[in-house]
This record gives sequence, structure tokens and C-alpha cells, in this order.
Amino acid sequence: MGRLGVLAGPGLFGGMFELKGYRNPVLVSSADGVGTKLCIANALGIHDTVGADLVNHCINDIFTCGADPLFFLDYFATGKLNPQVCAEVIKSMAEACMQNNTALIGGETAEMPGMYKDSDYDIAGFIVGCVEKNEIIDGQKIKESDVILAMPSNGLHTNGYSLARKIMGNSSKALNTYHTELGSTLGQEFLKIHRCYYRELKPFTKFIHGMAHITGGGLIENTPRILPDNIAAEFDVASWKIPPIFKMIQKKGKVNWHEMYRVFNMGVGMVVFVSKEDSIDILSKLSDAFIIGRAVARKANNNQVILKGIKK
Amino acid sequence: MGRLGVLAGPGLFGGMFELKGYRNPVLVSSADGVGTKLCIANALGIHDTVGADLVNHCINDIFTCGADPLFFLDYFATGKLNPQVCAEVIKSMAEACMQNNTALIGGETAEMPGMYKDSDYDIAGFIVGCVEKNEIIDGQKIKESDVILAMPSNGLHTNGYSLARKIMGNSSKALNTYHTELGSTLGQEFLKIHRCYYRELKPFTKFIHGMAHITGGGLIENTPRILPDNIAAEFDVASWKIPPIFKMIQKKGKVNWHEMYRVFNMGVGMVVFVSKEDSIDILSKLSDAFIIGRAVARKANNNQVILKGIKK
Repeated sequence: MGRLGVLAGPGLFGGMFELKGYRNPVLVSSADGVGTKLCIANALGIHDTVGADLVNHCINDIFTCGADPLFFLDYFATGKLNPQVCAEVIKSMAEACMQNNTALIGGETAEMPGMYKDSDYDIAGFIVGCVEKNEIIDGQKIKESDVILAMPSNGLHTNGYSLARKIMGNSSKALNTYHTELGSTLGQEFLKIHRCYYRELKPFTKFIHGMAHITGGGLIENTPRILPDNIAAEFDVASWKIPPIFKMIQKKGKVNWHEMYRVFNMGVGMVVFVSKEDSIDILSKLSDAFIIGRAVARKANNNQVILKGIKK
Repeated sequence: MGRLGVLAGPGLFGGMFELKGYRNPVLVSSADGVGTKLCIANALGIHDTVGADLVNHCINDIFTCGADPLFFLDYFATGKLNPQVCAEVIKSMAEACMQNNTALIGGETAEMPGMYKDSDYDIAGFIVGCVEKNEIIDGQKIKESDVILAMPSNGLHTNGYSLARKIMGNSSKALNTYHTELGSTLGQEFLKIHRCYYRELKPFTKFIHGMAHITGGGLIENTPRILPDNIAAEFDVASWKIPPIFKMIQKKGKVNWHEMYRVFNMGVGMVVFVSKEDSIDILSKLSDAFIIGRAVARKANNNQVILKGIKK
């Protein structure tokens, strides 16, 4: 049996969660990892951020359906257990869980010599949330002329690290180099914690027609998941400033701009479809949200994502 | 976002599960891996069993509380994705889920060059089940003179592989050697699928006072999890035949017998505490269950597990 939870409900075993107060509960779950962002953490010996990355990523994923997070479990696998490293990783998960009212209910620590090199480790996270059946957000309410709001990302979040590392380097030297454009070292930029949007956007769920978490696949692949067949999303690329890290990667790697928007979030962490009327109120209450585009009628079999003004 | 489920509920997204028909639902969850049993699968190139190991292990874990499995998610991480291997692993998960009325609701496939060697892979599983609050089995009903029933394991299940491989070898040659005692090759013995006890024991849950899934830690460490403080479990080691594989490991590795019972299941997959009266009916209906011991009064601060007749 796995490690028992640190926040089990009163009078219950670890691993248990009493579901209360829902009429027609729909459980929403997701499994994820943080990919090769772990290689950066390992190269720098910084282990108190990737756990929060994982939790925040998972919460954003299930929140796109309108679900509130209930509980989280982790899997920590390593070649040879370094208890201090493991404790730092789990502590950062626990803190991110706590910030989002989510119980860290259990997990598994696996020591697998021969599978992982020495103290290398991988982590996976599993989250369960809940939403009332009649409050599920699934994009079906998205209609022509809806406004698309964007919430900025604060960096790569947890996607695109294999390409980013290939281009920018993964050595101590590369990661510890200070870049004026970034205002930090490359390593500090790379380890910025994936931003969680749950608490900021939660007050507006009843106005939201659809939401997409911009992870691997970028705006191009994540937005269509929630669009009705007859709708396309038109993003105005001039409506936001692409953060310096993405420009550096593009320039150094001579990456095709379309590919950049397919691999990276390009500065956009979440897109939210709302009516034009509601957008005004929401924008006035969310200091860093901005209008990134609009829902338009889709021309037969055309792409569902239009990047207006993208560089060739 | 992760891979969406193959069995999402009607009209819902992948990753969603509508919870119906419970009065006071308590969600029971567990995260687990299959440890270095994966190294055997990799060495032999057999990938259609470890997925079922993972599912069955997870179902047994949550069933110890009386929970019915609802849905399962997986994490599959590899250095370089071999789609056929991945498909075989996931298919074996899907089959085990299906056999146990569990929805394989989603998962994540992560390609992490630099973290895993080539097509080496690790898998983790995450299960959510549900039990009515007033039907939770937590061992608190266990009383002196209760009978302990055992369900046989069919091999190592998913624990003790690091020690077993060290002693018996992990080379193709060692794994492909036929052993008369086993009636199979070592590799075939090692890859036997972790037995799931859910369907067999489910009809008897209302008679069960406590249940322990015998995983890493063996009878010695898993049984105390569910015992009230004033109760000890007395196992009669002569009551069952230790399967040949454990004897071979013990002999070849000259492993201390107490250590054997702490690392391996020794032929016992699940122990079930019931009243003496109910045990008769249950035994008559479960063809391979047997009486392995009894609950006794615990002498102050003594061990909670007594292995009567263990070889020194």
C-alpha cells in the first residue's frame, strides 16, 4: 500500500474523502507529470518548486470543466531515495494543495534501482475534483461573438522543456547564466512555478462558456478541445507581449513561429470564453486578464484556431 | 492536459465520472506503481501483464476499506515512446479495469528523454473508489477469537522484486531457465499477474471485520494497519504451503525467514478477519480460502503480529 495522506478526513483512514453537499456530483480527475522540467530541477539541485508545478497544473486541468479540486495523490519514483529531496518535493506539493483547499490525501514513494539513475526522480500527480452536473463547463455554450479572455502565464509552466533545453542548454553553466532580458538566470526563469488560476477565476464560473488550459500543444491544440464544431477561435497575436524567454528560444533555435505557438504557451496560461457583456465586469475585477480574441463562425472544415498577425 | 479516457461516461468529457446512488459517499483513493517488476517485463520484452498488475494492486488496496472501484487513471513515462509497447501496457490495464467494472477514465503519457533510458518506462496507477460511510471496513470490529481467513497469492504479486532479482538474477538467461519446482521458467513465474480479490470477496463485505492486502512489508507490516490496539494477529505458519518460488529465493539467498515474511507475501495475498460463525459459510463458498490464524488479545506493547511456527 502507498503512503497514507497527511490530511485525511477526521475519523477516516488516509486515502478517504467524504463527499458532502453535492446534489448531482460529477467527479473530474486528471493525471499528469511535469516532464523534463525535472531535469532542470535536478541539474540545479532545487527541489522545492516542481511539486507545486504538478499540483497547479492538475488543478488548472480539472478546473476547465468548472470542478473544484477535492484531493490530490502523488507518485514519487527514484533510483535511490534521498529523503531530504523527497521531503522538499512533497512539501511543495502540500503547500500548493493547501493554497487551493485541496487535501494531499496520499501517495506512493517507489525506490527502483536500475530504473532511475541514482537519486534522479520522476513525479506524477493525480487529482480528483467535483462539479455539479448542471454546472459543468464544456464549451457547448460558446457562441459567435463571444470574447476570449486570457490569463497570462509566468513562463513555460510545465511544457516545452525538451525543446527549450535543447536550444538553451541544460548545463549548470547555461542555467546559472544571468540574462538581462529575463532579469534573472536562465535556471530561475525555467523553474518559475506553473501558475494556478483556480482561485482567481472561480468567482466567475457561472459566466464562463468555456475554458482551455494552455499546456503542451499551445493555443493551437488546446483551444479546439472545447470549441463547438461550428466555432473557431480567432486570436489577435498583437494583443499581448510575448515574454522574453519565448523570444530568446525562437531566436536562438530559429524555431518556426507556428511551431512556437504549438509547443509553448507563449505567455498565455488559460483562455476563457465569455459573452461580450460579461467580459467588461470580469476584466474590471481581474487585474491582469486581457482580451486576446473572439469566437467566430468557422468556415467549413477550416482550422478552429486562427492566429491573426502571426509572423511567418 | 493528459490523455483522455477510453470509457468516459455518456455525454461527459473524458476524466469525468458521475457519482450516483450513494447516500453518504466516502471516496477512497490510492496511488501505486509496480516497482522493479517492470525490469523483468523489460528484460523479457513482455508488456501485456504489468498494466493488469497495477490495476489489480490498486483495486485490492481500496477494497480493504470496503470500497468498490469506480475509475482508474494511469501515468506512463518513457525515454522514447514505443507506441506498440505503450499500447500493450494500456490494453492490459483496460482489460483488468473491465473485469472489475472500473472505468479507465484517463491518463498521461510522458516522453522524457534524459530521464529514462531509451524505451524503458515506468507506470503509476491511480484509483478512486467509493463506499457508504456506514459500511467502511476499518478493522475496528475485529475482536478476540475472530478467525483470520487467507486468500492465496499466485506469486510475488508486485512486491519484493528488487531482492528477488538480486538473488535469482535478471538476465535473459536466468529468466528463461526452466525450473521443475516452478513448472515454468523463472520469468514466467515472476510475471504472473497480481491477483485481484475484489470480485470474490465482495459478496462477503458485510461479514468482514477487517482486511489487509499483503504487499511490501508482508504479513508483518500490513496486518497491523487494521488491528485495534488491544488485538494481535496470530498466524499459524503451518496452515499453508509456502509456494516454491519463495523457498527458492530463501534457499539461494540464505535470507533470514523473518525477513522473508517482511519482504514477500509468502503465498498470502489478502487476510480477512471474520467471526468464527461466519467463517464457516464463507469458507464453503470460496474454494481456495483457508484459515490462517486468529485474533488474540495483545499482551501489553508486544508485537501485533505473531508468526507461530516460523523457522529460525
